[in-house]
This record gives sequence, structure tokens and C-alpha cells, in this order.
Amino acid sequence: MIRLSQKSCFTRTLSTLSSVNPVGIIGLGQMGGRMADNLRKHGYNLVVCDPVAANVQKHVDQGAIAAVTAREVAEQCDTIITMLPSTATVEKVYLGKDGMHEVLRSEHLLLDSSTIDPIFTKQLSKELHDRGATFVDAPVSGGVAGAQNGTLTFMVGGEPEEFERVKPLLKAMGKNLVYCERLATGQIAKLCNNLALAIQMASVAEAMNLGTTLGIDPKILKNIMDTSTSSCWSSLVNHPYPGLMENVPSSHNYEGGFVVGLHRKDLGLAIDCAKQAEVSIPLTCQVHQLYNMMVAGGHGKKDFSYMLQYLKNGK
Amino acid sequence: MIRLSQKSCFTRTLSTLSSVNPVGIIGLGQMGGRMADNLRKHGYNLVVCDPVAANVQKHVDQGAIAAVTAREVAEQCDTIITMLPSTATVEKVYLGKDGMHEVLRSEHLLLDSSTIDPIFTKQLSKELHDRGATFVDAPVSGGVAGAQNGTLTFMVGGEPEEFERVKPLLKAMGKNLVYCERLATGQIAKLCNNLALAIQMASVAEAMNLGTTLGIDPKILKNIMDTSTSSCWSSLVNHPYPGLMENVPSSHNYEGGFVVGLHRKDLGLAIDCAKQAEVSIPLTCQVHQLYNMMVAGGHGKKDFSYMLQYLKNGK
Amino acid sequence: MIRLSQKSCFTRTLSTLSSVNPVGIIGLGQMGGRMADNLRKHGYNLVVCDPVAANVQKHVDQGAIAAVTAREVAEQCDTIITMLPSTATVEKVYLGKDGMHEVLRSEHLLLDSSTIDPIFTKQLSKELHDRGATFVDAPVSGGVAGAQNGTLTFMVGGEPEEFERVKPLLKAMGKNLVYCERLATGQIAKLCNNLALAIQMASVAEAMNLGTTLGIDPKILKNIMDTSTSSCWSSLVNHPYPGLMENVPSSHNYEGGFVVGLHRKDLGLAIDCAKQAEVSIPLTCQVHQLYNMMVAGGHGKKDFSYMLQYLKNGK
Amino acid sequence: MIRLSQKSCFTRTLSTLSSVNPVGIIGLGQMGGRMADNLRKHGYNLVVCDPVAANVQKHVDQGAIAAVTAREVAEQCDTIITMLPSTATVEKVYLGKDGMHEVLRSEHLLLDSSTIDPIFTKQLSKELHDRGATFVDAPVSGGVAGAQNGTLTFMVGGEPEEFERVKPLLKAMGKNLVYCERLATGQIAKLCNNLALAIQMASVAEAMNLGTTLGIDPKILKNIMDTSTSSCWSSLVNHPYPGLMENVPSSHNYEGGFVVGLHRKDLGLAIDCAKQAEVSIPLTCQVHQLYNMMVAGGHGKKDFSYMLQYLKNGK
Repeated sequence: MIRLSQKSCFTRTLSTLSSVNPVGIIGLGQMGGRMADNLRKHGYNLVVCDPVAANVQKHVDQGAIAAVTAREVAEQCDTIITMLPSTATVEKVYLGKDGMHEVLRSEHLLLDSSTIDPIFTKQLSKELHDRGATFVDAPVSGGVAGAQNGTLTFMVGGEPEEFERVKPLLKAMGKNLVYCERLATGQIAKLCNNLALAIQMASVAEAMNLGTTLGIDPKILKNIMDTSTSSCWSSLVNHPYPGLMENVPSSHNYEGGFVVGLHRKDLGLAIDCAKQAEVSIPLTCQVHQLYNMMVAGGHGKKDFSYMLQYLKNGK
Repeated sequence: MIRLSQKSCFTRTLSTLSSVNPVGIIGLGQMGGRMADNLRKHGYNLVVCDPVAANVQKHVDQGAIAAVTAREVAEQCDTIITMLPSTATVEKVYLGKDGMHEVLRSEHLLLDSSTIDPIFTKQLSKELHDRGATFVDAPVSGGVAGAQNGTLTFMVGGEPEEFERVKPLLKAMGKNLVYCERLATGQIAKLCNNLALAIQMASVAEAMNLGTTLGIDPKILKNIMDTSTSSCWSSLVNHPYPGLMENVPSSHNYEGGFVVGLHRKDLGLAIDCAKQAEVSIPLTCQVHQLYNMMVAGGHGKKDFSYMLQYLKNGK
Repeated sequence: MIRLSQKSCFTRTLSTLSSVNPVGIIGLGQMGGRMADNLRKHGYNLVVCDPVAANVQKHVDQGAIAAVTAREVAEQCDTIITMLPSTATVEKVYLGKDGMHEVLRSEHLLLDSSTIDPIFTKQLSKELHDRGATFVDAPVSGGVAGAQNGTLTFMVGGEPEEFERVKPLLKAMGKNLVYCERLATGQIAKLCNNLALAIQMASVAEAMNLGTTLGIDPKILKNIMDTSTSSCWSSLVNHPYPGLMENVPSSHNYEGGFVVGLHRKDLGLAIDCAKQAEVSIPLTCQVHQLYNMMVAGGHGKKDFSYMLQYLKNGK
Repeated sequence: MIRLSQKSCFTRTLSTLSSVNPVGIIGLGQMGGRMADNLRKHGYNLVVCDPVAANVQKHVDQGAIAAVTAREVAEQCDTIITMLPSTATVEKVYLGKDGMHEVLRSEHLLLDSSTIDPIFTKQLSKELHDRGATFVDAPVSGGVAGAQNGTLTFMVGGEPEEFERVKPLLKAMGKNLVYCERLATGQIAKLCNNLALAIQMASVAEAMNLGTTLGIDPKILKNIMDTSTSSCWSSLVNHPYPGLMENVPSSHNYEGGFVVGLHRKDLGLAIDCAKQAEVSIPLTCQVHQLYNMMVAGGHGKKDFSYMLQYLKNGK
């Protein structure tokens, strides 16, 4: 018999619940909330859990069932997605008090889309597999817009058959599924992508600041770069110079998008891994320090394309 | 009457020469030589000039006329392309002893494809225009392969009517023509492209070194990056990890391509301009220093994708 | 009754031992071994412990008593010094199986001279104090030479009365005692000193490489810097240019001294702390990456003044 | 007969002037003005020249003779000191229209204390020597305070007999005279000193920011660093943390001292030289970029110890 918290306010009966085989989702922030929306649009019934009551209520209003603890989610659902802000939170949700491990069973298919320390992911994965559950790491790229539009890229670690099992679920939330083979490689790929992304955005910022100061028209310089050897996503899709593209943060006061504070977190994880693995990543480190300074300067909530303004204005 | 050096060995008569309206090309190195080949393939008769006798002879064997000095080229041709290794050489060829300025005339259409200091380009352009000649700067991107295959991108500064005049010539050597409007903006665009390129290659190198050390398969990581937010030319077209792509320098001992020593030159020009313009380009400076160290370590003749190995091996 | 491992081979009777109130020392590497020598010279009887048998034997030959586990040391000694290579080792020796915590008593005065994560030091300190023992952190500066000559600087965290208690012991091993007041501040001071040291050595390396390449005599440049605003320890005492000073590593193939691999460890700890505290340390990060590259290039066992050669030769 | 500009307003007769053998000083800014004061205090009669009328008047009020052009100074004085802000200004004053070269004679002893491009200094020196004059470069270290108190360090290039000739003059303005032997080595030494200085100040800033954030008392950390291996002038004499020392810029809102904008100029010269000499100076380049950003952020007039605040606040 499933124990449910008195605090959770839902009305469906548990028999109904199990008949529709709900999917659990733990973590309803900027990303997780939108991923839940897409799951619902694809017909999934949801059991949701988040420490912020308003985040939960929004989904309950759309028919989701609220759970107070991760353990409760694990009791009600076989398939559970976690989208959490830190390694410590993931550890707590999976292995802590009232965590999923307390009710772990072999039917469980657990999928972590958080961006966290891949070394912890390896340990977690081993522990869950040893106890018979299925676990894959599947961090995402594509940002809030990708989460909203269901166009995320998922980088999936784990065994081939595990990847097959999670495919339908991921298709409901993303466009590209990249199978990274071994455990935790989803995390590794995510960190590598994001460090390269930060550096590339800075490369566009430096080129644009220099070129326009020397007298070239920003539109022309963008056009040249986009058709030349410095072509990259940060220029093609999320250009940092205001007014060149519609619907990018730089044209809206650098609001929204992939904010400096979050991107900094990923860079920090990459630096931790690189230190442990004794790999040299000098540009990543320099960019990470510039992110630190941007946060100190009050720009932690701006899109990371703000780098252009920060380098230009020195504040 | 055109004075021709006794050293030059050609047999066509001068009357033949003028009837076909030859194009002059000064500078027959890795780039200029291949550009000359493409002009010849498109039916242009050439007058060629280079301090290295072997470079000249190769083109004479194909029917070109040799000239010993830039002045001689300017005497014989109305349209002249320069592709030279430094600002000082360009200054000498245009304005020095036995330079083109000595016989400058209003029919002259001069086109500099060298990558040099844009501030000098502005001065040179003004001087030539004041004397009635037409001058455009049209540096290239695409490297030796682009020069060979006629797929270069030309970044063209100058007046609109000047751009129209040089279009047919450039189409014979390149695929993309980007009109950058004002004088010297071709140079500026080139430098901006190349600084962003150096940084982006380093971003791919750091990501690949970290990711593969942590255990992800290099092919999979490349695939992820190419379909995600860190997608860029340095990964898509000239990947630094050996064996992932055919026909790239990394798969052939980092031979050929855009060598570190030359790329360093462009970064140096960008740094000069940034200093004068008081623009902050921290990552460019850091990469430039790594290029310095690579050259000191003996890798100046390797493709710039060697960055991956340099960061990995520390030598 | 004190239990002693059968493996330890010593001949003095335990009654003798306790009458002279021996000092325990755990960790007999480059630093700890020399510190033990100085304690012995000052008349202290020692109980020693190290995983490397040869390290232990050397001191047993001089009259020390060998112990196999940290617990054994804690059984025999009230005052114990630890000088260990990593946070994990310190944790094991104090809190692990067969660690000192198993026999902790209020008479214990424990002193950790290792350079480790100050956040762990705070936690350890709290735990030991809660159980009634006295603990101070007292990391050192001065390197192997300082350890040998008894001229180390000790940076001591802890309560004032604790500092008073450890003074005589520290005086036997060092010249300067700096009381840093609060717990773990010894560690913090050490990390801050060592990050500044690494950067300053690099500053001397860059200045010497540039100056001598431009034509100034190295002796003259050293003299100027030592009497000017760039005067620093790395030039005055441990100059990186070979042949300017006797008895410094640079004049002996960069052997001995404060090796790159160890210094890198301290920089890594500083970077961890800075990340947690959200403090920007861009030059520390850049130097840390250069240390990474030096280690990859095979110079991890050289004195950190090798930076001069590494920047010069790019390998 | 000496031609004097009508604009200059002085009353002494020229006969008086020559009898006392005046010293010329060209450039009366923050540094040159104070150096002139010290010369006067040591009994020298002065002929002064500066484009800012107020600067000139101040010295005329104290008995100096005003000259309008460098040529006029050279007409009236055998011994002349220049203290100018840029390579271009030095070139103009020595070799330009109304410059000293127009009246150069073998009695001339010319001494340049400006900090400029050492490659130009070499060329200038050769030209002046070829024409029979004596020239030494003697840039200074010690800042405005050193100029005021007569405690500057002079780094003197030139021949030994030239150094002997300028000694008495320099002793009137400075405390330390460092003979750097060859021509232009004074400049080289100055640039090397100043690049190391900038890096060392940043090292202190990073250590202090990290240490105090982690909880150590700033006074204690300063004390430790000053007696340890990270001891350096930037901590001992010009500490960047406010309130630890009296009479340093950090304790007075970072006013006065060696301002960021000027220090940046020296770093820029060092970078130019390093590029030409193909020497790697990665930390210098990084610091230079931070100076760029500080200037962009509005801190160009602050003492360079402001680095601490800039890293802390990100603006």
C-alpha cells in the first residue's frame, strides 16, 4: 500500500493512478517544468515533486499528482525523471532520507537529466544497477527554449537496451537523442559541450567588439563569420550583438536564455573533472573566471551572451 | 616601352601580351601560387612576380610571364593581385623602390589579398585613391585547400563600384564573396574571423581532451558537439582529433592546412589593433601565447588543430 | 596497556618510552622526515609512522619507535604531528579505521602540518574539539630546505592557548611562527601564500625571458628587480635563471626544491576553495593550467622555478 | 646668439644663464615636474619646457627659465633630461621639427627618463651618437612618491663613461642608480620590472581576496605573506587591501600612485617587444587585458592596486 503525504492534495484514486502508469518527474524549475509540460502534451500522466509549492501547483492544476518526497514518487511510478540543480541534490533525491533508494525495485527506470559531476553519476549508476534498477544519465542541451519547444538534445549514457527503453519518453521532450554508450558519458558530453560553448561565445564577443570598434558594420561581420571558418552556433543562433537577430537574448536586454550563473556551474563541474583527470583546459578556466567576475558584477541572471557587453564595458 | 629583366625567361612577344590584357599576381607562395593556378584555369593570362625563382618558374612553365619587380608588373598589367606575407612587404611592393607607385596610372585596379595591419591598409588605400588608382583589400579565408579548390571566401573592402569591378576576378578564385563596404574592412573581417577561429579550435581541443580522458568515445563526442550548441567549423570541417575525419590535417600528422606560425601572425595583428583601439580580447591573447609556446616547442609548421596535442602533451 | 604491532621492530621498553613522553609523527616523506630529524636534535623522543618501510627504518636507526597504525601512535603519544600528502590521507589517519579517533583522549594535542582543504580542516577540528582533544592546523612554508635547516615558517590556526602549547614543538622545527587566530586559518594562509608564490615566480620568469632576449644581462636585470618595485622572494631567494645564484634549484638542473607536482596540488586546493567561495583568481587559474602542462610535459618533479624554461622552450 | 621664443616670459639675462650652466628638462608632468623640483633643491638652474602652460609657470615662479620648443632648450643647455609620455613624443622632441636634433652639438648630454619602446631607443641612441652627442636612457621606478621624495630608482643604459657623467644629476633625483650597461637596457629593465610588478600586485590581490573571504584576518594574512615565500614589494610597500597601511593608495580610495592607465601603457610596450622577440609572457598578457577592462570600467585613474577591488566586485 502506497503511503502518500497528507500535504499532497490530489483527488484521483490510486487505482486510477496505477492503471495509467504515470511518469514521475522530480525538479520543476525552468527546465524540468517545461519538460513536464511536453510530457503531458504527449499524453503522459505525471507525478510531480519540487520543494517550491508554486512549481508543483501549476502542474497539479493541469492534472498532475503531487508527491512530497522522492520516495513517494518512487512508490507511485516505475519511470522517473530527475532534473535537479546540483550533485548534492541528486544524491539526496536518490540516496538520502526519503529518497528513492528506500523503495527501489527492479521495475524502476530512473533517468537523470541534471547536469552534475560525472564521477558521482558513475558511482550512483553502479549502486542502482547493483540493486537491480535501470538508470541512465541524460543531460540536455538547448536551454529553456529547447525545453519549451520540445527541441532539446539529450545526451544519453547507459546500456543499449536502456537507451531503447527511454527513447519514447525522451522523444516527447526533445528532438535529438544522442546515445553516448557508456554510463555517465551523457554527463561528460554535456560538460564538454558547455565548456566549448562558453569559449565559443567569448570568441564571437571578442571578434564583434574588435571589429565594430575598428569600423566594420556588425551585420556584415556576422555574415562573414557565419559563412567562414569561424562559423559557430553562438553566432548563427544566439548572436551576442544586440539587434542583429530577433528572439535572441541579446536583442532583449540579455534576458532569458542560458544564464551566466547556471553556465558557470557547468564550467565549474568541468574544471573539477579536469583537475581530477589532470587535463589542461586553459581557456575554460579563463572563461570561468570571467563568469565569476560577471556574477560578482551583478550579471549572473543574464544570458551568457552578455560576455560581449562585459568585455566591452569592463563591468 | 616595357623594361623587362634579363633574368626572366619567356618567349611570348610583348604585343601578344598586351592584346590579351594580362593579370598581374605578386606573391606566389602557398596561397598566391594556387590562386594563380585558378586564374589560369579561367583563361586569364598572367604576369607573375615572386622572390623565389622556383615559384616563378612553375608558372612560367604554364605560360605565365615573369616580372622581376612589382614596378614591372604594374607596367604590364592594369589589374594586379598581391598576396604577400607581411605589412612591410606590402608596403615595399606598393610604395617602395621599384614598387608599383612609380608607374601608377588611373587604369590600375589593385587588389591586396594579404592579411596585414588594417590601419596600414587604410593609409595605403587613401594614398592610391588620391593618385587616381582603384584599390580594394580582399583578404581570404579557407586556407590552402580553399585556394587549391577555388573555394576561398573573399572579404572585400572598398567602394561598391570597385567591388563590382573585381567580382569576376575573385569568382575565378573563390566561392564566397563578402562585400564589407568600407575600405580596410576586408582586413578587419579577416582578423576577426581568424581570432575567433583560433579560440574555437582551442575550445574543441579542450572539450575533446577532457571528454576522451573521462571516457567518452571521440566519435560520439564529435557527433554530439556537431549537433549541439558547441557546433563550429573547427569541429565540423577541420576536427583536431586524429582519425575522425579523412582529409584533415589531424589525420595526417597535422601537416598542411593553416599552420600555427601563420595563424599566429594574424593573431598578432589583431592584438596590435585591439591595443590601439583599447578593446579587451582576453581569450585571443591567451591563445596567442599558446601559439608562441607551440612555435617555441617546434610546432610552427603544423596545422593549428595541433592545439589538441599541445594541450594534451604539454609539449 | 599499550598494544604495539608485532611488525614494529624496536628494543626500548615501554616503561622507558612513557617516561620520556614521546612525540608522535605520522608521515615521514620529504618534509615530515626532516621535521622529525629536527625534533630528535632538540631532544624529543619520537614514535614514527609511515607506509614506506624505508622511511620508518631510517628513524628507527636513530632511536625512534616505529608504529604501524595511526591508532598505535595515538596510544603511545599525547602530542602528535601529522605531515601528509592529501586531504583523504589526513581523513584516514584521524578518522578512519585504525585512526587516531579510536583512542582519542583529552590529553591529546594533535597538530596537522599537511596542506589540505581548509574546509575539511574546519570540520575535523570541530569533531576533535567536541571530543575534548586539542587540535591545531599548522601548515608550513619554506620547502624541503626549510624543513632540513629548521627554518620553516609555521602558519598556526587554533585558539590562543593551543598556540601557546605547540610553540616549543614548532620552534624545534621552524624559525617563524605565525599565529593565524581562528581554526583552519593556517591552511588558508598557506594556500594564499602558495598561489601568490606561483604567480610571482611566473612574473620573474616572464621578465627574465623577455629582458634577456631583448639583450639585457641577466645579473643586471635580477639586480634591478631586487632593488625595485618588482622585488620578491622568487627573485631574491630562489631565482629561476640558471647560474645567477648558488644553491638554488635553477643552478642545479631545477632539481630539488618545491616541485611542480606538489605546488600544483596547493593551487588545486586554492581553486577548489575559490570556486566554493565564488572568488575570482584568474592568474592562479592560468598558472595552474601551466603547471598541468608542465606535468604533462614531464617536468612534475622539477622545482617550480622551471617555469622560466617552460615558457622559453614551449616544452 | 641664442634665439628665444617671444612667447617665453623670463627676465634673467642670457649671460647669467650660461654662467650657471642650466639643466634643461622637457616634460613637466606628474613625474617630470617633481624631478625638476628636486634638481632645483640641489642647486641646479633649470630651463623648462612643457606644452601645458600651467606646468611651466609653476617652475618659472621658482626661478626656472621657460622655453617653448625642445630646440630652444637644446640651444641653452648642454645637459637635458626628457620625461615624456610616449614614443611618438620622444621622437618629436628629439628628431622632429623644432626638435633638439636641429641644434645638436658634441657638448650635449641627453638623458631620456621616459618609458618608451626600447627598439626606438636603440635607433635614437645610434643616431645621436653618430652625430657626436652623448645619450643615455634612464627610465625610473618608484612612481610619483619616489619622484617627490627623490627616492627614484634609475635604470641607466649607455656606455660606462656616459653613466659616470650623469651620476651626479641622477643622484639629485633618485636614491638607487642601476647601471644596465648597453644602450636601451634601461628601457628594457623598466618594462621587465613593470610587467613583473603588475603580475605581483595581482598575485597579492588574488591571495587577499581569497583568504579574507575564507575567513582569515587581512592583517594576519599580510603579515604571513610578508615573512614567507610570497613576500613582495606590492604587499610590503603598496598593499592593495584598504586600511592595512597608512600612506598607500588603497587606504585613500586608490587615489594617486601608479595609475592603471599609465601602467597599462608599459604593459603594452612589453607586449609589443615580446611579440617582436617571440617571447611568451602569458600572465603579462592576461593582466594587460584586465587593465584594459579596468580602464573600460572607469578605473584608469586609480592606483594599480585597485586590481583587488576589480577582481572582488567584477567592476
